[in-house]
Amino acid sequence: MNRPQLVAVLAQVRAGTLSPEDAARRIGDLPFAEVAAGTVIDHHRELRTGIPELVYGASKTPDQIAAALQELARVSGGGLATRVDDTKAAVLRAQLPAARIDATSRTVMLGERPARPAAAKIAVVAAGTSDLPVAEEAAVVAEFLGAPVLRVYDVGVAGVHRLLARVEDIRSADVVIALAGMEAALPSVLGGLVDRPLIAVPTSVGYGVAIDGLIALGAMLTSCAPGITVVNIDNGVGAAVAAVRIARMAVPA
Amino acid sequence: MNRPQLVAVLAQVRAGTLSPEDAARRIGDLPFAEVAAGTVIDHHRELRTGIPELVYGASKTPDQIAAALQELARVSGGGLATRVDDTKAAVLRAQLPAARIDATSRTVMLGERPARPAAAKIAVVAAGTSDLPVAEEAAVVAEFLGAPVLRVYDVGVAGVHRLLARVEDIRSADVVIALAGMEAALPSVLGGLVDRPLIAVPTSVGYGVAIDGLIALGAMLTSCAPGITVVNIDNGVGAAVAAVRIARMAVPA
Amino acid sequence: MNRPQLVAVLAQVRAGTLSPEDAARRIGDLPFAEVAAGTVIDHHRELRTGIPELVYGASKTPDQIAAALQELARVSGGGLATRVDDTKAAVLRAQLPAARIDATSRTVMLGERPARPAAAKIAVVAAGTSDLPVAEEAAVVAEFLGAPVLRVYDVGVAGVHRLLARVEDIRSADVVIALAGMEAALPSVLGGLVDRPLIAVPTSVGYGVAIDGLIALGAMLTSCAPGITVVNIDNGVGAAVAAVRIARMAVPA
Amino acid sequence: MNRPQLVAVLAQVRAGTLSPEDAARRIGDLPFAEVAAGTVIDHHRELRTGIPELVYGASKTPDQIAAALQELARVSGGGLATRVDDTKAAVLRAQLPAARIDATSRTVMLGERPARPAAAKIAVVAAGTSDLPVAEEAAVVAEFLGAPVLRVYDVGVAGVHRLLARVEDIRSADVVIALAGMEAALPSVLGGLVDRPLIAVPTSVGYGVAIDGLIALGAMLTSCAPGITVVNIDNGVGAAVAAVRIARMAVPA
Amino acid sequence: MNRPQLVAVLAQVRAGTLSPEDAARRIGDLPFAEVAAGTVIDHHRELRTGIPELVYGASKTPDQIAAALQELARVSGGGLATRVDDTKAAVLRAQLPAARIDATSRTVMLGERPARPAAAKIAVVAAGTSDLPVAEEAAVVAEFLGAPVLRVYDVGVAGVHRLLARVEDIRSADVVIALAGMEAALPSVLGGLVDRPLIAVPTSVGYGVAIDGLIALGAMLTSCAPGITVVNIDNGVGAAVAAVRIARMAVPA
Amino acid sequence: MNRPQLVAVLAQVRAGTLSPEDAARRIGDLPFAEVAAGTVIDHHRELRTGIPELVYGASKTPDQIAAALQELARVSGGGLATRVDDTKAAVLRAQLPAARIDATSRTVMLGERPARPAAAKIAVVAAGTSDLPVAEEAAVVAEFLGAPVLRVYDVGVAGVHRLLARVEDIRSADVVIALAGMEAALPSVLGGLVDRPLIAVPTSVGYGVAIDGLIALGAMLTSCAPGITVVNIDNGVGAAVAAVRIARMAVPA
Amino acid sequence: MNRPQLVAVLAQVRAGTLSPEDAARRIGDLPFAEVAAGTVIDHHRELRTGIPELVYGASKTPDQIAAALQELARVSGGGLATRVDDTKAAVLRAQLPAARIDATSRTVMLGERPARPAAAKIAVVAAGTSDLPVAEEAAVVAEFLGAPVLRVYDVGVAGVHRLLARVEDIRSADVVIALAGMEAALPSVLGGLVDRPLIAVPTSVGYGVAIDGLIALGAMLTSCAPGITVVNIDNGVGAAVAAVRIARMAVPA
Amino acid sequence: MNRPQLVAVLAQVRAGTLSPEDAARRIGDLPFAEVAAGTVIDHHRELRTGIPELVYGASKTPDQIAAALQELARVSGGGLATRVDDTKAAVLRAQLPAARIDATSRTVMLGERPARPAAAKIAVVAAGTSDLPVAEEAAVVAEFLGAPVLRVYDVGVAGVHRLLARVEDIRSADVVIALAGMEAALPSVLGGLVDRPLIAVPTSVGYGVAIDGLIALGAMLTSCAPGITVVNIDNGVGAAVAAVRIARMAVPA
Repeated sequence: MNRPQLVAVLAQVRAGTLSPEDAARRIGDLPFAEVAAGTVIDHHRELRTGIPELVYGASKTPDQIAAALQELARVSGGGLATRVDDTKAAVLRAQLPAARIDATSRTVMLGERPARPAAAKIAVVAAGTSDLPVAEEAAVVAEFLGAPVLRVYDVGVAGVHRLLARVEDIRSADVVIALAGMEAALPSVLGGLVDRPLIAVPTSVGYGVAIDGLIALGAMLTSCAPGITVVNIDNGVGAAVAAVRIARMAVPA
Repeated sequence: MNRPQLVAVLAQVRAGTLSPEDAARRIGDLPFAEVAAGTVIDHHRELRTGIPELVYGASKTPDQIAAALQELARVSGGGLATRVDDTKAAVLRAQLPAARIDATSRTVMLGERPARPAAAKIAVVAAGTSDLPVAEEAAVVAEFLGAPVLRVYDVGVAGVHRLLARVEDIRSADVVIALAGMEAALPSVLGGLVDRPLIAVPTSVGYGVAIDGLIALGAMLTSCAPGITVVNIDNGVGAAVAAVRIARMAVPA
Repeated sequence: MNRPQLVAVLAQVRAGTLSPEDAARRIGDLPFAEVAAGTVIDHHRELRTGIPELVYGASKTPDQIAAALQELARVSGGGLATRVDDTKAAVLRAQLPAARIDATSRTVMLGERPARPAAAKIAVVAAGTSDLPVAEEAAVVAEFLGAPVLRVYDVGVAGVHRLLARVEDIRSADVVIALAGMEAALPSVLGGLVDRPLIAVPTSVGYGVAIDGLIALGAMLTSCAPGITVVNIDNGVGAAVAAVRIARMAVPA
Repeated sequence: MNRPQLVAVLAQVRAGTLSPEDAARRIGDLPFAEVAAGTVIDHHRELRTGIPELVYGASKTPDQIAAALQELARVSGGGLATRVDDTKAAVLRAQLPAARIDATSRTVMLGERPARPAAAKIAVVAAGTSDLPVAEEAAVVAEFLGAPVLRVYDVGVAGVHRLLARVEDIRSADVVIALAGMEAALPSVLGGLVDRPLIAVPTSVGYGVAIDGLIALGAMLTSCAPGITVVNIDNGVGAAVAAVRIARMAVPA
Repeated sequence: MNRPQLVAVLAQVRAGTLSPEDAARRIGDLPFAEVAAGTVIDHHRELRTGIPELVYGASKTPDQIAAALQELARVSGGGLATRVDDTKAAVLRAQLPAARIDATSRTVMLGERPARPAAAKIAVVAAGTSDLPVAEEAAVVAEFLGAPVLRVYDVGVAGVHRLLARVEDIRSADVVIALAGMEAALPSVLGGLVDRPLIAVPTSVGYGVAIDGLIALGAMLTSCAPGITVVNIDNGVGAAVAAVRIARMAVPA
Repeated sequence: MNRPQLVAVLAQVRAGTLSPEDAARRIGDLPFAEVAAGTVIDHHRELRTGIPELVYGASKTPDQIAAALQELARVSGGGLATRVDDTKAAVLRAQLPAARIDATSRTVMLGERPARPAAAKIAVVAAGTSDLPVAEEAAVVAEFLGAPVLRVYDVGVAGVHRLLARVEDIRSADVVIALAGMEAALPSVLGGLVDRPLIAVPTSVGYGVAIDGLIALGAMLTSCAPGITVVNIDNGVGAAVAAVRIARMAVPA
Repeated sequence: MNRPQLVAVLAQVRAGTLSPEDAARRIGDLPFAEVAAGTVIDHHRELRTGIPELVYGASKTPDQIAAALQELARVSGGGLATRVDDTKAAVLRAQLPAARIDATSRTVMLGERPARPAAAKIAVVAAGTSDLPVAEEAAVVAEFLGAPVLRVYDVGVAGVHRLLARVEDIRSADVVIALAGMEAALPSVLGGLVDRPLIAVPTSVGYGVAIDGLIALGAMLTSCAPGITVVNIDNGVGAAVAAVRIARMAVPA
Repeated sequence: MNRPQLVAVLAQVRAGTLSPEDAARRIGDLPFAEVAAGTVIDHHRELRTGIPELVYGASKTPDQIAAALQELARVSGGGLATRVDDTKAAVLRAQLPAARIDATSRTVMLGERPARPAAAKIAVVAAGTSDLPVAEEAAVVAEFLGAPVLRVYDVGVAGVHRLLARVEDIRSADVVIALAGMEAALPSVLGGLVDRPLIAVPTSVGYGVAIDGLIALGAMLTSCAPGITVVNIDNGVGAAVAAVRIARMAVPA
């Protein structure tokens, strides 16, 4: 149950179309639903933090993912799972024919996106094509949370003119998510070109001394461009949640 | 020169009180001023990125700091230096009697804060008293950049009731900066209590396996509370700049 | 042979129902039994350290695990193996139909729990559902060693009210084992709420900069709550053994 | 205010010698006292966690240490500061002539040890003479918290017969703290010889690949002797607090 | 060709039973033989360094291992391959029916051990059963190089009496190889008990913070027992070669 | 003695103006001169590798530096010392009044630059003013070795237009040395803009997770711009030597 | 389109055999061609940087590799893919019967090598046979880019006479690429023997503390032979590109 | 008391020149002497391990060093202290005028070298002049323990001919200690040239990625030359003790 749903219930009470008892029961619905062995859905989470529970597919079986998505769709109209690899996706395609499975972002959505608070535009900027899975994860989650998304891909700094050609586009957004692996120089260059909040996502793209994204992470944290903030390696979901929190503030109440 | 100053110049041109030639000269003032051997002030930076140059005192001599502050005060009305240790501060106290030196935050301000765009309130929340220097650095910089600041200190999670007692206060702010050293659990707890953008700052407080803040940094990046973003260890300036960029968006244009 | 068994043998000698020669033979049974190529059971271990040998399944074949469990059951009445993955468990299910195989904790028990010294209650508190395998390993081992166990799961600090709601329960135990992965903030919060001995177990849950549990380990070791002690990553067995040693002291002799 | 003090106040109320109003005032005394700029004493901490606040001298000036000790002595009868180096100790010797300064353990005590709950005996076992500062820190803190302490020093494993000669002594204690630097093998050998709760403290003794205690820490965490728990490098205070929590349980209520 | 073979050739020349031309041809045999694509056998290596080439199976296909062993057997009478895993061993069993394959040490020997210089006895001492593959690799290689070997296994320090019971045996050897994983305390204890050259081999046994043997390596290098030398993790071959070099010196010329 | 000096000697021999005996003596001059306790000058080094010995001041006393420079000046006309800090420089100023001491590059030159092979132009490009000491070290060494140098400083990527404004200048050089600390993005951007050999030098500029230049090093090694090569952190000398070796090839023989 | 192709087009325009409109169209051909989902070919790259796009096979499916090679062959006459493992190579063998697949270097070439600027000879020197895949990758890429290559393999420093026997050969080249794993001492020895630009490539050959090439990388960066530059672990492509840039300068224009 | 001293005492008993009671008293002298607060001398150590106690000066005050040396000289005729820095040496020069202080090796010897078992010759081979302090520490300790030492210094591999010129000298020794910092290639080259036991000592010489000797240590452990063993960084004492143990075996009993 998110805030608009809560407000709607309370409005019904004021309008006399819902008895206080029934309202209490609806609101009081056990906030945690156990949907499969070891998988618990926290339905009041959105009320507390503004962000609904997202199903993290990497540590769940297809059965657990399916059960979680169905519970979320039942209660709030729609659910989203991330980190669903190809093997699990194939199983889910059979189990949940109505689900929309997106191979690039490794996400599965069941139902419709519930109505969410208005949010300003978020630009998702990725350095290379290898960064696309994480970039799309961020984009799909941001859209699921109600923010319009501008995708700007393949603008790594080794061809800085390609990036410069897209700067005006990027400036049309209110928040920027920048993704890069290897030496991860993109946020530093971008940070000198835009005055928007900029969230950097290191990706595990690279080999040898890239050390699974640790160098990219370190490079982003030591960026010479002030005001960049960083999330964990490959954490498209975290970047999207942070960006949406900001983007909601950029819209007049 | 910041954007309001630029707009003012252009308004004078439209009003006929300033000739285009003079305006061009003012605008065209060499954007970089060399104020001392090896110290260059970038006066157009604020125009490009919304944030003026701050003097990073750790890598400068007192002479260089003084020269940079004087140049900033001359052109824009006021300048701020950070990471000015006690020894350098003592020298500057003699050189710049008009400067305001703050021992806790290790900052030195010369002149007045220039007018800046409106910004919403920022809460600076620190876990322990050892985190105060970085917390105050963030608070002073945020104020210098035009944002009102709410300080909430000594609310580490080992006494979680102290934190809970201050949650309503923290919720009155639009952006939250959370600082902690050692195991750095504060942002995780806070992230489950507020729905605001939350910027976490690891501090180098701790010993042994704390490894100069690396564990605090890692803990913040792997926080189970989604939507937290992180800056470099002890980077109060970076957190303040990021928070101000967000806080400016939370104010209707 | 554990201490009660030894005392029983000696009592029989005093009572005249067992000849000294037979007693000597029973006590003198070769303390190490080789049960399969390279697998040695140390039967006097419990006498020396109070803790019987537990079969570490990760480095053994199903044949070796089965032989070790049978030897332990033969001599002391019951044996327990840990870290038995699904593949090995399937083989053992066929080899040892009488064994109780527990998928979550990855343990296999053959025979009955031998009588053990009395022990006070141990609370096993886990932050997230991904921590369950290690939490259950700790719980099952503690129970096998004779301690009653209270399970409190899914009380991670990002929803601190859930933890607060269970604090009174946790306080009913005499020793606390707290498990968490990622930033592992649970023990710090818990350490400020209970005055019991608290053993923290970092788990390898997480990705990217979590580095297979190293950040969780570091966070627990640098906890701002004094008096927390820590075991190796994912070491549910070690935490249980340490907790039982303490819990036995909390029971009047 | 610790629990016995609280019980005494309440007994006075029941006896009619203290009015409820006065009792409330005494109990309600602001639990946090600010004793010097940035130094806060948490007087209710002992009530909550059973352990009084200890003054961590490493991050405080002599003035702050003195103020904190005086406040603790005023309210509870006695205070203890740790990590007071030689320079600070010299200043404190002048400021607090009544204080007892111990050079080896780097501790300063003002007033008398307040009455504390009974606790069983704790053995503090150190591998080498270089480990003495941390060993004594643990011993002094344990004694301050009310536990009798047995010191067993210079029993490193490279001369294992010296350790064996002291095992019976060590077994007379109910809890064991074992300290070692370099390869830190002492707890592993000890863990096979005693059946008591064993808390291992890595010290930063060593050079080269010892890496300031990280190898000692890792060795203790991977000990082949089960049931050993570990605290941060050089953390004598933490080991003492954990040991006292256990030792209090070993005494019949 | 090793030194005895060379001396024999030269003796034949002096005796007139071999023409200088034929001798030259034999000696001058191309020292490097290419036996399979990318696999080169260095036949003069033993002449230069006293140690023949050993076939490192980990980086070779079964075909390459077979070809190398056949070439070594052809020229010097016998060859040894190490790090031959089960899969490769199965292929070699079919290809080289005459080879002796040893599963524990993962070695394959073809032909007979060539005569080698006399060497004193080497003790191979291992802490746990998980260390056996590396221990046997060291033992088999040492025997192949001509040294008698005493095996002392399963004497880890967590049961120090088992080790003490074997010390006299170990002292009968002239050189000691000590293997241990996890916290690797065995060499430290052993180093205080014997006055022989002691070579320590860290093994990758362990999990979590054991970090694939890095902690064991660090513990051995920082041992408080002076005079211990160390080889790479799991490097049984290197330890054996070093021990044999020493053992040859312990035999009167 | 460098190659031109050798050729000159041999020409004198052919011309009959130098006897073979004298020539031999000159050439045969002991190639290593001991100039002070523990300081040896290798006079034939330039003949072998094309690069004369440079005096590494960091590990030498002022006396040793002075003696080495005097020996180099005596034999080849001039010598250069690097890593001479302010304290040592002050001593040398008194000892060697004729020396040219450069504070920024921390170099001291005695005598004149000996004639060296022709070399093409080298651009030394530095990201920030904090990188100047290393940049100047590279520039001064390159000039000492005979290459013309173009300095392009303060062109960090956070203000990418400043870098673009200098690209044509940089393209006028035949080899590029790029220096940067922190996230070290400069070489990646530059590598996409120029087609010259590009040598990257990480500097130890930065704090926190910059880890004394390790992140900068890692970022340069994982650069997405192919063909960049890297030297050790702060290694201006190494970069200059590598660049000069290339620049000499860019000049027709 | 590379520079010769561009010059040819422009020559046609001057000769009147190509209309300016057609020329513009040819030049203006969209520089980026999308050849398969997510795979973009940058046809102007060679014009900008002198190096054509090489297909990095590790992050692509066989279909993507095939499409990229066909597009490159169509436009410029020939394309090269690297890091094509055996499985992908088998698929490509069927899809692209005309492609030349090289198992050792893991490369696939389609079409003919386009004409490229003249380049001097490059020596590729490898320490051991395990380094061959990376050495051949470097050699094949260098040849594809137009440079003649001298291969010198199996000259590791543990048999330094083998290396010395090849030094004159190596000196015949103008640029040297040196590859080594494990302790990677080859470049240090070689750097003292040749005066050519020397690019060192660490390989991931080794086990235990070799840490996947990190020690080899560190050893090369700290080499005592000045003027060595280094690329990422196993980065044969990067070394070849850097070497070719240099080798082109060694040829008179 | 060492073995010859013990034998001498026993011989006196047999000869009747010493009463059993007096002999017992001499032998039974308390094996540990406390010579200053916290400094204990283990007089039976040589009897147990063949090596007398050496005074490790780094962790002792000048008073403690002096007391330890005097006690050792009193009982056995002579004592040696290592890691005595310049400041401590100056104090000792005044306290112990009879002591021989050696600045390079940082050692102090009081009295005469006691008679020790015969030992074969040890070569101490160092790569650079910066390695001399550790090399001399090894040499002085080896001599103190009774072994003749051959010093071969400044033979780093970047000038491999210098090393080759000394190989015959080195081969005259029976054991080799090889020291090097930075990339530490010396043992690998040497390991291919000599067939003696070879002990490698990494030194902390170097900067940047040398990481205080960790790369040198890693390089030595991964050496491609088999049979090299390694001690801790800068551990000249450990190398000398290990070498002497070997060298004593190379001498017929």
